[in-house]
Amino acid sequence: MERTYRLVISCPDRTGIVAKVSNFLATYNGWITEASHHADQKTGWFFMRNEIKASSMSFDLESFRIAFEPIAKEYSMTWSVTDSDIKKRVVLMASKESHCLADILHRWHSNELDAEIVAVISNHNDLRRMVEWHEIPYHYVPVDKDNKSAAFAQVSELVEQYQTDAIVLARYMQILPPDLCEVYAGRVINIHHSFLPSFAGAKPYHKAYDRGVKLIGATCHYVTQDLDEGPIIDQDVIRVSHRDSTEDMVRLGKDVERTVLSRGLRCHLEDRVIICENKTVVFN
Amino acid sequence: MERTYRLVISCPDRTGIVAKVSNFLATYNGWITEASHHADQKTGWFFMRNEIKASSMSFDLESFRIAFEPIAKEYSMTWSVTDSDIKKRVVLMASKESHCLADILHRWHSNELDAEIVAVISNHNDLRRMVEWHEIPYHYVPVDKDNKSAAFAQVSELVEQYQTDAIVLARYMQILPPDLCEVYAGRVINIHHSFLPSFAGAKPYHKAYDRGVKLIGATCHYVTQDLDEGPIIDQDVIRVSHRDSTEDMVRLGKDVERTVLSRGLRCHLEDRVIICENKTVVFN
Amino acid sequence: MERTYRLVISCPDRTGIVAKVSNFLATYNGWITEASHHADQKTGWFFMRNEIKASSMSFDLESFRIAFEPIAKEYSMTWSVTDSDIKKRVVLMASKESHCLADILHRWHSNELDAEIVAVISNHNDLRRMVEWHEIPYHYVPVDKDNKSAAFAQVSELVEQYQTDAIVLARYMQILPPDLCEVYAGRVINIHHSFLPSFAGAKPYHKAYDRGVKLIGATCHYVTQDLDEGPIIDQDVIRVSHRDSTEDMVRLGKDVERTVLSRGLRCHLEDRVIICENKTVVFN
Amino acid sequence: MERTYRLVISCPDRTGIVAKVSNFLATYNGWITEASHHADQKTGWFFMRNEIKASSMSFDLESFRIAFEPIAKEYSMTWSVTDSDIKKRVVLMASKESHCLADILHRWHSNELDAEIVAVISNHNDLRRMVEWHEIPYHYVPVDKDNKSAAFAQVSELVEQYQTDAIVLARYMQILPPDLCEVYAGRVINIHHSFLPSFAGAKPYHKAYDRGVKLIGATCHYVTQDLDEGPIIDQDVIRVSHRDSTEDMVRLGKDVERTVLSRGLRCHLEDRVIICENKTVVFN
Repeated sequence: MERTYRLVISCPDRTGIVAKVSNFLATYNGWITEASHHADQKTGWFFMRNEIKASSMSFDLESFRIAFEPIAKEYSMTWSVTDSDIKKRVVLMASKESHCLADILHRWHSNELDAEIVAVISNHNDLRRMVEWHEIPYHYVPVDKDNKSAAFAQVSELVEQYQTDAIVLARYMQILPPDLCEVYAGRVINIHHSFLPSFAGAKPYHKAYDRGVKLIGATCHYVTQDLDEGPIIDQDVIRVSHRDSTEDMVRLGKDVERTVLSRGLRCHLEDRVIICENKTVVFN
Repeated sequence: MERTYRLVISCPDRTGIVAKVSNFLATYNGWITEASHHADQKTGWFFMRNEIKASSMSFDLESFRIAFEPIAKEYSMTWSVTDSDIKKRVVLMASKESHCLADILHRWHSNELDAEIVAVISNHNDLRRMVEWHEIPYHYVPVDKDNKSAAFAQVSELVEQYQTDAIVLARYMQILPPDLCEVYAGRVINIHHSFLPSFAGAKPYHKAYDRGVKLIGATCHYVTQDLDEGPIIDQDVIRVSHRDSTEDMVRLGKDVERTVLSRGLRCHLEDRVIICENKTVVFN
Repeated sequence: MERTYRLVISCPDRTGIVAKVSNFLATYNGWITEASHHADQKTGWFFMRNEIKASSMSFDLESFRIAFEPIAKEYSMTWSVTDSDIKKRVVLMASKESHCLADILHRWHSNELDAEIVAVISNHNDLRRMVEWHEIPYHYVPVDKDNKSAAFAQVSELVEQYQTDAIVLARYMQILPPDLCEVYAGRVINIHHSFLPSFAGAKPYHKAYDRGVKLIGATCHYVTQDLDEGPIIDQDVIRVSHRDSTEDMVRLGKDVERTVLSRGLRCHLEDRVIICENKTVVFN
Repeated sequence: MERTYRLVISCPDRTGIVAKVSNFLATYNGWITEASHHADQKTGWFFMRNEIKASSMSFDLESFRIAFEPIAKEYSMTWSVTDSDIKKRVVLMASKESHCLADILHRWHSNELDAEIVAVISNHNDLRRMVEWHEIPYHYVPVDKDNKSAAFAQVSELVEQYQTDAIVLARYMQILPPDLCEVYAGRVINIHHSFLPSFAGAKPYHKAYDRGVKLIGATCHYVTQDLDEGPIIDQDVIRVSHRDSTEDMVRLGKDVERTVLSRGLRCHLEDRVIICENKTVVFN
């Protein structure tokens, strides 16, 4: 893949934004390889993502930022520019179930995921061998109802120490504390089973079985303090029938979960997701 | 299509049911063209559907019933046998939106649906011309908050008068009264939008838009007194993105709704759906 | 829907195109409601579609064209600008099967399709009543092996007389003559069944059945002189199993065909499809 | 999972087969947990699969076979009965690409696949470490154009030595010799990319890209001497667009390939697939 800069912008919509930004890029000979725009009619907000050949501009990232800042100010932009060569540092968190973790690790191992997986943190030791085969450090941080704050202090410390850019909850069966959610807002990705209709509380697959649903699904979303209510990145479903037992549903659910989580993670890593209020714009 | 008898059975599971039923059929030279079985491990209930060439048996339906009754009793069966040549008499109910109604009417017109559509009842007059083109009687029964019981008395009368076998709510925007639900239990089919997660109350598409869902869906189900909580016959979804406005979602939702309703109706008409508690077995 | 201008461009890729075009739009206060870009890495070609609020520019379409022409020349653009208020004039062609025609007519009748359906031409009379109910002229132009050139002369004349912008072959079971294909290049849309693998020649559904395929599909494409080999606009599939007879496959195939044709047509009508060599860029 | 016997039958269709078989089972108190039938109207062939609780019958497999043989003869059945506790011995063959292999290994490792994976044979050494982590023997059998017969003699020997029940070509980029195909007819499973339309010859993804297809797919099939023309077990597709490069298509294609192969393999392992001429009946 050719090295690119990714310029991602959101701002109140008005005339001339694209002209301003593309002029800026053209002025410095920026060769745009991919551009996506979106104007949300309802919120009056504008979103833009440009991918520019790094070699076409004489800028490094710092100079880019300095040069672009006045434009960003003029248009009240929330914005970022990233370098495709600087891989995001990702911490994976898991519990006992391996399906999501194994999928992400294999994609990473096959050079499919544009990230550096710097560590795995788990409240169990079950997946240590799988992780260590990939030569990734494995941190066992047990969590029980009496040690929660100590445990999450340790998690926070690890995450900080690894200079983490993104946290992926690959079926991590614990709820992150509010402060961690806040510090890493928009950078913690979770996967959650989903049904039509939804089933609140425990044992959702049993409830789905009892209700005879014909589709089971999964939702990949950013973690916020409202459990499983954060901005959705991706979703998918799989067909089931009366022939499928609860166990079959769980198994099929795993397939959807890992697919959707990897797909959502990929979009996040390529700076394709912009959060706006409680929803996302995904430029894929 | 060759004429068949459809023998549909549900009963507590035990050894020998299939042997008993298939012996019965073999004794009278019944040629089975399609057979489906299901044993629900959780409820311990057994379900069976046989389709038999009518010409292979010397029976008419009445004799079939008399001859089978003792077996049914022995195994505590809930059962029915129907003749594929006797089409179910269907009443469609609609309001102003035409997408589901038009789809069903076209399939019926193209001989795709194995039913007799005996009437359309609507609380509006908008769709009269479309229905009458198909030479189907159209009954305008306005419903407002002051005349509900009178209106539904008229609906009940019409439905009875037409010797209705099944009622299809093709986007009929009124709630059927409990007594009608009860009399036609397992024979009233509805279509309902569905989301992951679900959104309660009014304007669900607006809520889905605000939440940035990536899939919108529809559920076809039997109507029970618990609104939209009846046994599910079929479901499907369609992908949406941030580019889709609420209007786009409504439009795409229509496509899923009509597809799922027609598919569910087809299963019902061919006696492929068995209700058990609040779920279905669909032998398709 | 608010009135917009749709500016659609393809040209050799180079630095500064977006800047040039967006500057042009900003200069005249054009408010961009939707913008899509694509750079094909392989052909080195650039594609762009802008949708601009008509009310935001002081231009009418003619002035727009005059003002933009120098830019188009400078960048060797193939381009067009259309007004969303000027609906495309569409002629539908059909034979005996109604599924695609009925679907398009119903969407048009429900104001879902942004087009004027000016006429239906058919080599049979079967669908006349359905078409005339919609108050659309129906032209019966029989085609047999001895009168082909006369018949298609008549078709050409009708098409010209109606000032047709687009022709939709809604299961029209005749091959258009090369000259008509050429005159209407990029403006004749066809729907064709598709399988994995594909089956050449007659009775493809029978071959698909004999091969036990698990998916059947449909492809919506522009008609070129190479039969069914033109640029693909959209495709979809539906799942089948051993339980589905050839007749079931045909029936299910119809559902895919009509869905894909309507979806492809919608993209065409909104100027979302750009043809490049034998493929398309679809900005949806 | 409770231990079951799986009785799988195909024979010319006639009256009384189900009665005969289910009587046989009832006579020995066989508790049927799952039963599937199919009558192919076109070939006049009948297919049946029964799953029976092993604990409900006093039989072992050998006695079952002896007792059933006369019935099988009477109805000219091709049949088998297997014990769910006796896992099939599977040899995986791979080359350099890991996506299908890793997926199968992970499912096996997670106890999702009801099989014993006895060995991996590869014409490269790249995947040795991954396989050996799973404690499965890895055999490196290089194949080049000069040593083919020697290499495949070694493969045959290995396969025989492992008492292999099924061979899975998990992206094994070599063509099996006809004699191996024949010996293992109906027991070698392959995965193959598929497109609508299909593209013959080398570099299919490049051709698919140049043609602008909107769906890419994969077909899981039994290997016969006609390359990629054997009976289809399962198929699936994934949506692509002009935004996807050839590399993206290859990557997305991998996701479909591994999903479809694992799904097809699962059906095979549970004796759910019956081959009839060049097609399959899949009782899932």
